[in-house]
Amino acid sequence: MTVNQLILEMGRSGSFGAGRLAKAVDIYEQMLRDDATIFFGFSGAMVPAGMKQIVIEMIKRDMVDVIVSTGANMVHDFVEAYGGRHFKGTCQTDDSKLYSEKIDRIYDVFIPDQYFVDCFDKPMLGICQEIYGEMMKNKNSPRLSISEFFKKVGMLMKPCEDSIIYAAYKADKPIYVPALNDSCFGLLWDRKYPSVKEVPKIQLDVMGDMENFFEMFRASKKTGALVLGGGVPKNFIFQAAFTTGKKLDYAIQITMDRPEPGGLSGATLEEAVSWGKVKSKASYVQVIGDTTICFPIMVAAVMERIFEK
Amino acid sequence: MTVNQLILEMGRSGSFGAGRLAKAVDIYEQMLRDDATIFFGFSGAMVPAGMKQIVIEMIKRDMVDVIVSTGANMVHDFVEAYGGRHFKGTCQTDDSKLYSEKIDRIYDVFIPDQYFVDCFDKPMLGICQEIYGEMMKNKNSPRLSISEFFKKVGMLMKPCEDSIIYAAYKADKPIYVPALNDSCFGLLWDRKYPSVKEVPKIQLDVMGDMENFFEMFRASKKTGALVLGGGVPKNFIFQAAFTTGKKLDYAIQITMDRPEPGGLSGATLEEAVSWGKVKSKASYVQVIGDTTICFPIMVAAVMERIFEK
Amino acid sequence: MTVNQLILEMGRSGSFGAGRLAKAVDIYEQMLRDDATIFFGFSGAMVPAGMKQIVIEMIKRDMVDVIVSTGANMVHDFVEAYGGRHFKGTCQTDDSKLYSEKIDRIYDVFIPDQYFVDCFDKPMLGICQEIYGEMMKNKNSPRLSISEFFKKVGMLMKPCEDSIIYAAYKADKPIYVPALNDSCFGLLWDRKYPSVKEVPKIQLDVMGDMENFFEMFRASKKTGALVLGGGVPKNFIFQAAFTTGKKLDYAIQITMDRPEPGGLSGATLEEAVSWGKVKSKASYVQVIGDTTICFPIMVAAVMERIFEK
Amino acid sequence: MTVNQLILEMGRSGSFGAGRLAKAVDIYEQMLRDDATIFFGFSGAMVPAGMKQIVIEMIKRDMVDVIVSTGANMVHDFVEAYGGRHFKGTCQTDDSKLYSEKIDRIYDVFIPDQYFVDCFDKPMLGICQEIYGEMMKNKNSPRLSISEFFKKVGMLMKPCEDSIIYAAYKADKPIYVPALNDSCFGLLWDRKYPSVKEVPKIQLDVMGDMENFFEMFRASKKTGALVLGGGVPKNFIFQAAFTTGKKLDYAIQITMDRPEPGGLSGATLEEAVSWGKVKSKASYVQVIGDTTICFPIMVAAVMERIFEK
Repeated sequence: MTVNQLILEMGRSGSFGAGRLAKAVDIYEQMLRDDATIFFGFSGAMVPAGMKQIVIEMIKRDMVDVIVSTGANMVHDFVEAYGGRHFKGTCQTDDSKLYSEKIDRIYDVFIPDQYFVDCFDKPMLGICQEIYGEMMKNKNSPRLSISEFFKKVGMLMKPCEDSIIYAAYKADKPIYVPALNDSCFGLLWDRKYPSVKEVPKIQLDVMGDMENFFEMFRASKKTGALVLGGGVPKNFIFQAAFTTGKKLDYAIQITMDRPEPGGLSGATLEEAVSWGKVKSKASYVQVIGDTTICFPIMVAAVMERIFEK
Repeated sequence: MTVNQLILEMGRSGSFGAGRLAKAVDIYEQMLRDDATIFFGFSGAMVPAGMKQIVIEMIKRDMVDVIVSTGANMVHDFVEAYGGRHFKGTCQTDDSKLYSEKIDRIYDVFIPDQYFVDCFDKPMLGICQEIYGEMMKNKNSPRLSISEFFKKVGMLMKPCEDSIIYAAYKADKPIYVPALNDSCFGLLWDRKYPSVKEVPKIQLDVMGDMENFFEMFRASKKTGALVLGGGVPKNFIFQAAFTTGKKLDYAIQITMDRPEPGGLSGATLEEAVSWGKVKSKASYVQVIGDTTICFPIMVAAVMERIFEK
Repeated sequence: MTVNQLILEMGRSGSFGAGRLAKAVDIYEQMLRDDATIFFGFSGAMVPAGMKQIVIEMIKRDMVDVIVSTGANMVHDFVEAYGGRHFKGTCQTDDSKLYSEKIDRIYDVFIPDQYFVDCFDKPMLGICQEIYGEMMKNKNSPRLSISEFFKKVGMLMKPCEDSIIYAAYKADKPIYVPALNDSCFGLLWDRKYPSVKEVPKIQLDVMGDMENFFEMFRASKKTGALVLGGGVPKNFIFQAAFTTGKKLDYAIQITMDRPEPGGLSGATLEEAVSWGKVKSKASYVQVIGDTTICFPIMVAAVMERIFEK
Repeated sequence: MTVNQLILEMGRSGSFGAGRLAKAVDIYEQMLRDDATIFFGFSGAMVPAGMKQIVIEMIKRDMVDVIVSTGANMVHDFVEAYGGRHFKGTCQTDDSKLYSEKIDRIYDVFIPDQYFVDCFDKPMLGICQEIYGEMMKNKNSPRLSISEFFKKVGMLMKPCEDSIIYAAYKADKPIYVPALNDSCFGLLWDRKYPSVKEVPKIQLDVMGDMENFFEMFRASKKTGALVLGGGVPKNFIFQAAFTTGKKLDYAIQITMDRPEPGGLSGATLEEAVSWGKVKSKASYVQVIGDTTICFPIMVAAVMERIFEK
């Protein structure tokens, strides 16, 4: 039984979580066939959880147009590009012992702390200095928006088939990280941080991306959101739909967050209709389930529908 | 029966959620008596949910030292300071109808869309222009960190006893909003946004706060985190503890997020021990429950212990 | 600040969980003032969590009319009546080690396994034999419904002010345990179970309670449900409302279960309206939060309103 | 890509929910190859959600040995066997309107209320009267355990390839429903229930199944539990493992319940180790995710491994 056959079975009964997942597959397929601009919200520790290859495949196959990510996912992507690895661990463990062994835990994933120095701080600092040097040479003000920054990182990092940042650069798809400071990237700007010898003087303008991000919405015939988790990536995409008046025609969110506490991550897509973020006649669905399970299934089923004919 | 008496009862049985909430009260009391620097993480739609007065009271009574917030909470605080209101609504509603009536829904709270124009965009734009004008007069580069920006907003906004931004300014407590662009603040930087006549040319440096935020950690004898929800505010506080090596001595998180999906919001505080964000011998507790219920109880009980003797 | 004052504050903002909890207090107060028959659904490990005293107080003050419980809660109540105790433990522990030390864990509560033998099997078996002997003497068929069984247990157990079973017996309030076999009670009927020397020959008729339970609904002027958790107790109460056509006039549920997976525990009270279990004009509310926190607060606030004037 | 290939990919990264689901597939495969007695706990509205066919297939292929179900799932199975249907509905609906149209809602599934009369009450009452008549003819006491009752129902109902009850009867696999009264079955014992003309006089002994259920544990070389949801079915299986000392060698639970509120449904399998319900060296895993998604995937992958070589 292929993954798509399973999804079709789920769609036949059409109820509960299975029905919602089957609907998500239908909507993702529609988004692609309708040539909507697809904004991909990428939150949660998805790279440590092994979801990277799927995202790279989506980029290469043009199944996504714009990436809006947490800082952490980009950090972990870069770490792996420079030789770092995430190990299968366990959450039944003694964290004090892990600490003394310099191993960081992300749920049931282990990562040696040293990787953040060797595979992030050092190479990323080098790249930052190169960016700064080039800007100075061209007598530019050393000011960049965050999406420009990621484009330069993709250009200057070592070519790596297994990196989201690199794949996005090669495919000319922008990466937005609205809260970049809230990740190891932020630490590079701390003069006293041990692995930083010289602080990069690049100025990253937090508002520098607003206009071009909105512009992409305005220029789109149809818009779609595909959100894993919620958080800043979800809100950033949805507020652009709200501001620009280009309400989402399609929206999929896979999350474990619930609406009852009132946070934006768990807010229903119906709520987004009241704001004018999602069209009232949009095709939309919220899948309440584990992202690391539902996301690979959805993408595999859609690929089967689109590419295997 | 006073709130603290109830908490003491809960502490006596000491189990499940009740036990954790009672422990949270004990830890918050300890933090205060031990004169720890208290970092307050403020995520979720807490201002719309009516939690504002509690935070203002905490600021006035010096029960918190540093505020790390989502953009949205600061937006809603500002809106209320300029006359906007949040109304008791319902989540059993027709969102298309709400949209056509220009009412935005936040779970079971309603807010007329017009407030964002009249009580946010217009006055905030005025303040931004004033900030810019003054910077130009002093021939400064128009560059601000986000905490500097909020200090200036507090200074220039109309005095308002009912505002977190104003109360923090008066009490000289910094406000950090690591993802400011991910809120109505970001929209002001969009030239085509209808209510923005002239875009402020202030440059908000996303990395501008890193050093001074870390500095506050480094300068603290003891550190404590009090986190509502999770999201960027939680991570921003915890990564500073990690980077500076000033592991948290005290940590409280109230959230509905669960550890199993692997996101940072729901990550256990034990996990944070592995990273060196929380001391292995720290006093810490995670309360899994509704923030709008647990937070007021916790604060009321602590106030009773500290101030009513 | 008293608990009721806090609740009144929560009601003033009226939103999110705080609003729902404040509404629950109002509804419970109304139920009592309106003299509704109150069906109390009691699931989850509430006795181990220390909620017993509250329930006893509710029974004594006539704040509840009918108890529908899981078997486990009645087992733990009986164990404590015969000297067993629940200890404050931790969920950060080595369960293999606990097993080898014969300590059973219930989340963060510890209970020595021996208590189930000494404080449950032995005295309960004695009571069962006494019941059986008396039935034989009166030449009755040894057949009992479960609520009759609990009445006899209350009558024959050693008087204990700290027992729900005993308090319910004294106050003449019936206890229903629809799934009695799903608890240590069931084990007594296993001939090979080590602590059972002689199996009681009492026949417990699973359907024996249906008519009298329905009769209580039919005889009620107004009906109210107050449900902690969900599970069998929730369904048993709601199906009686459905069957008898005495739709609930009032309904409160406190739970962490969510509607999305489609189970009855997390089903919304709106869903119950479609079935005719809850009146469409009923006063009802679902509080999504930790029961061990929300339940004591609710009861304390209602007591303050009802008894402290 | 086949479902098993996807699972193997998930197992390769091995983390978060995907890792747990991949582990569940491995464990289920082991259970089957090791010829363990497999106890299947079946809770939540799984038949309305369309999971029936999978369970029937598992029964036919001998992938399960003993079924422990909620009453509701058996009711809905019987309803469908007698021509009733569940319809794809929505949870965005007006439940008062549904009520007035006599349509019952189960999350996003609709079922006309009349089906419970025509496709359950009437045929089931006929079967009960037939059972009773036969018992009287043989001068037996009209007393049955619940598993005996279901065997007779399977024997006397109209043959139906699409029924769990019928398939279990044909395959000689017992069905246990510890809380049978907590379902439409219970209503048949209510003399005033409109569709019941004559109350069946069969006595269903709630404790009648204890010994034979325990016996199956005692007679097993190896034991495995496969639990959907939690509730009474989970506890009933686990307490038998505890009582008989035949700790589970294998255990899989798929649920959305969380451990923090302390209920048995969400209790970790580690907790079960402390009780001696699960072997400390057992192969076990808890998948925190939507059952209607994870269960079909797991079964499809295991079938591919076992039967498609």
